Amino acid sequence: MDKFKRNERLAVMTKILSDAPNRIFTLSFFCEMFGAAKSTVSEDASILAGIMQDFKLGTLETVTGAAGGMRYRPLVQEGEGRAFLEGICEKLRSPGRVLPGGFLYFSDILSDPQLVSGMGKLFAAEYYDANVDFVLTMETKGIPVALMTAEALHVPLIIARRSSKVYEGSAVNINYVSGKGGIETMSLSRRAVREGGSALIVDDFMRGGGTARGMLSLLSEFNVKAVGMCFVLAMEHPAQRFVEGEKALMLLGDIRDGEPSQVRVADWVK
Amino acid sequence: MDKFKRNERLAVMTKILSDAPNRIFTLSFFCEMFGAAKSTVSEDASILAGIMQDFKLGTLETVTGAAGGMRYRPLVQEGEGRAFLEGICEKLRSPGRVLPGGFLYFSDILSDPQLVSGMGKLFAAEYYDANVDFVLTMETKGIPVALMTAEALHVPLIIARRSSKVYEGSAVNINYVSGKGGIETMSLSRRAVREGGSALIVDDFMRGGGTARGMLSLLSEFNVKAVGMCFVLAMEHPAQRFVEGEKALMLLGDIRDGEPSQVRVADWVK
Repeated sequence: MDKFKRNERLAVMTKILSDAPNRIFTLSFFCEMFGAAKSTVSEDASILAGIMQDFKLGTLETVTGAAGGMRYRPLVQEGEGRAFLEGICEKLRSPGRVLPGGFLYFSDILSDPQLVSGMGKLFAAEYYDANVDFVLTMETKGIPVALMTAEALHVPLIIARRSSKVYEGSAVNINYVSGKGGIETMSLSRRAVREGGSALIVDDFMRGGGTARGMLSLLSEFNVKAVGMCFVLAMEHPAQRFVEGEKALMLLGDIRDGEPSQVRVADWVK
Repeated sequence: MDKFKRNERLAVMTKILSDAPNRIFTLSFFCEMFGAAKSTVSEDASILAGIMQDFKLGTLETVTGAAGGMRYRPLVQEGEGRAFLEGICEKLRSPGRVLPGGFLYFSDILSDPQLVSGMGKLFAAEYYDANVDFVLTMETKGIPVALMTAEALHVPLIIARRSSKVYEGSAVNINYVSGKGGIETMSLSRRAVREGGSALIVDDFMRGGGTARGMLSLLSEFNVKAVGMCFVLAMEHPAQRFVEGEKALMLLGDIRDGEPSQVRVADWVK
């Protein structure tokens, strides 16, 4: 007889799997935890996969092979990401968000744990099979959403800085031309990054992609390939474009003082 | 007859409750979701509370009153937090982490999603009943752990900056004396903070508490009370102390070039 009821096993498995998205758990891991047979846990997994699907809570997949087991991914259902972002666009269109100088205030959105968690899952869903080794962001405003993306992908986050810091040891510095035409510096700690491998760039805002181009150039110093570039918000019609192929969740039209911002959800979002 | 099996309801409730820690869900919310009677969902909740307790996954509490319902909190069990932090201390003692000038490299720890998530839960567990309105951190290195603390408490994160930024609108700036004796500036966007209320300060490192004192002074400009100050790491014997009553997860002894760092888990950690 099994030590624990199916009720109990399913609830515990749900908690453990959803706390560690994109990580592979072996059948043996749960067999030991519950003192249950492989056939029992295997049946549990297939019931749980059905529940996840029925209630649109993500996907529970079986991974075959030597390093096999089961893996939970908080996949976004058709229409769900779009509805979530429409709610954020609505907020961004509210009066008073357009600041003097043509800036849009959205720092509150960028540090709301539930909103950045949702956005991070949307980014992660696009790159589950891209073998991302780490997420790279440029300080400061993109850190929360980049962290949540890294959590959903089950990889570390690495933060590039505007200048090298004593507490990060030796660093590689590059100069780059920002979207506004000035020369800026970007710095990445040598010990933070392993040579080779693949990174996903995640940041808060893209004007023309000057900073993104800087990050690509910084990654190439470490012989790291960028598998993608993700932004919360991008200008819809920048004067100049320095990169191609980025994924922005929302697009920002022209900003005029005293008028609400024109923000819309990007077409690629499901 | 109920539309869904208990198995299914328990797994779904586990997912929803643990994705939104410290948030109150009404019985009716789940009754509608499952098309089930209140007595059924109420029984589900009590079974789930038992499972959470048996497997040390946190607590599921019943909240009574008009705004009542059930609430999940990822409470840390006796010994669990200490074991988790011992693992981090072990890493921090590894050779090569002491940098020239007596700095300890721990940026990798501070941006590892799983580690900061664990640390955030440890902080949050101390302040669940303190009516925290928001978490405050000072850019940059404390942002990940502060975000995870805010997520566990189900409150927003607000980030103080070293200077006011055009994209944050009008701001309150203060000058403060840093731990090293220099005069520094700290800035907080006016629209980010509501007057009154309570904040929890979370940051990565405390030397003597100069920055923490600055944050307290900045909060007082907004008539906001600090209910606590949390740090990942604090100097065990600072030359000067500017604040009292902080909670640091780990304590750092004197640093000598070429020797491993002396880091230990703080006594208050369970």
